[in-house]
Amino acid sequence: MNYPNGRRKRASTSNLAKKNSANQVVYSNRGMNLEEDIDHTNSYYVESNKAIIHKKPTPVQIVRVHYPKRSAAVITEGYFKQASTTDYNGIYRGKHIDFEAKETKSKTSFPLTNVHEHQVHHMERILQHDGICFIIIRFSTLDETYLLPTKDLLTYWQRHLNGGRKSIRYEEIIKHGYIIPFAYQARVDYLRIVDDLYF
Amino acid sequence: MNYPNGRRKRASTSNLAKKNSANQVVYSNRGMNLEEDIDHTNSYYVESNKAIIHKKPTPVQIVRVHYPKRSAAVITEGYFKQASTTDYNGIYRGKHIDFEAKETKSKTSFPLTNVHEHQVHHMERILQHDGICFIIIRFSTLDETYLLPTKDLLTYWQRHLNGGRKSIRYEEIIKHGYIIPFAYQARVDYLRIVDDLYF
Repeated sequence: MNYPNGRRKRASTSNLAKKNSANQVVYSNRGMNLEEDIDHTNSYYVESNKAIIHKKPTPVQIVRVHYPKRSAAVITEGYFKQASTTDYNGIYRGKHIDFEAKETKSKTSFPLTNVHEHQVHHMERILQHDGICFIIIRFSTLDETYLLPTKDLLTYWQRHLNGGRKSIRYEEIIKHGYIIPFAYQARVDYLRIVDDLYF
Repeated sequence: MNYPNGRRKRASTSNLAKKNSANQVVYSNRGMNLEEDIDHTNSYYVESNKAIIHKKPTPVQIVRVHYPKRSAAVITEGYFKQASTTDYNGIYRGKHIDFEAKETKSKTSFPLTNVHEHQVHHMERILQHDGICFIIIRFSTLDETYLLPTKDLLTYWQRHLNGGRKSIRYEEIIKHGYIIPFAYQARVDYLRIVDDLYF
């Protein structure tokens, strides 16, 4: 597994969630789902003024709205729309940061059907414009969460377009991704990895 | 009226929408509303690879969803939530950009009730983190659209909190804001102002 900057171990490694190679979970994510964990982490980042990163609302196509007297408008017909960008973005250390987050129950691979073409193109553009961009992938059964840089996601996306497999192997994510430490206040403390990788 | 960098006129002024002081509209916005105009502008920016800026979806609290057989899920009960951030953000020339956009029918002032406290705090934070942040204000009756930097919005917000008026006078917006030119492909060509103001 890579650590940022190619370092395999860091002085502070005892504070990090350790790789789970022998089914040994050092810091558990304690059953929260990835979205809740990231929301919690982002709230902590905002409150501590470390970064301003928010989840975008779920895109809804609103078809019918009812306006009752003396109470709030009610959406009575709406449909989920496919997101054309990533779910999370904001600013960190003066730079634009943009990422997607997905979890899979698979223990062996991350299915690329989890991301949409629009999102991949968006991520590609963010990279071209010098933003920080990546995907957070959680293997929920293994309780391991990785940050995979966009350039690596694009490699596997391209392999798929060229007729290759429709997923990224677990081993490939271990090799090119960075395990995200669990911390009490920042449950998915991805900015630690960002610090090392992008600054 | 200010032009960016304090220049009152620019060489390219003939290509810009001129100030409407004598009720003389040089380039009209042609009846589109501000949101449509900005969406159109942002699409043009993305397609021409100038900037990656998107509107965030309207925040909806989804209460009830119906899953019919053989067709898409239908939201049958939902409510509009108050936005806690701005409506638009993205990346331009490597920097994070974040803004709100509002229109008013008033010819004399912009009511501060158009923006929420959460949004103002968000904008303040973006500024602290070295992002580009502003509000776009359209006086729809006058067909004039201005970019007002966050620092000026904060000044008037503070005046209001200190017991002052609940709006920003039209004259104040003219003085501290920058009129946004209308262009065919970029109907609200705000990045022209951003170029001068922030780079």
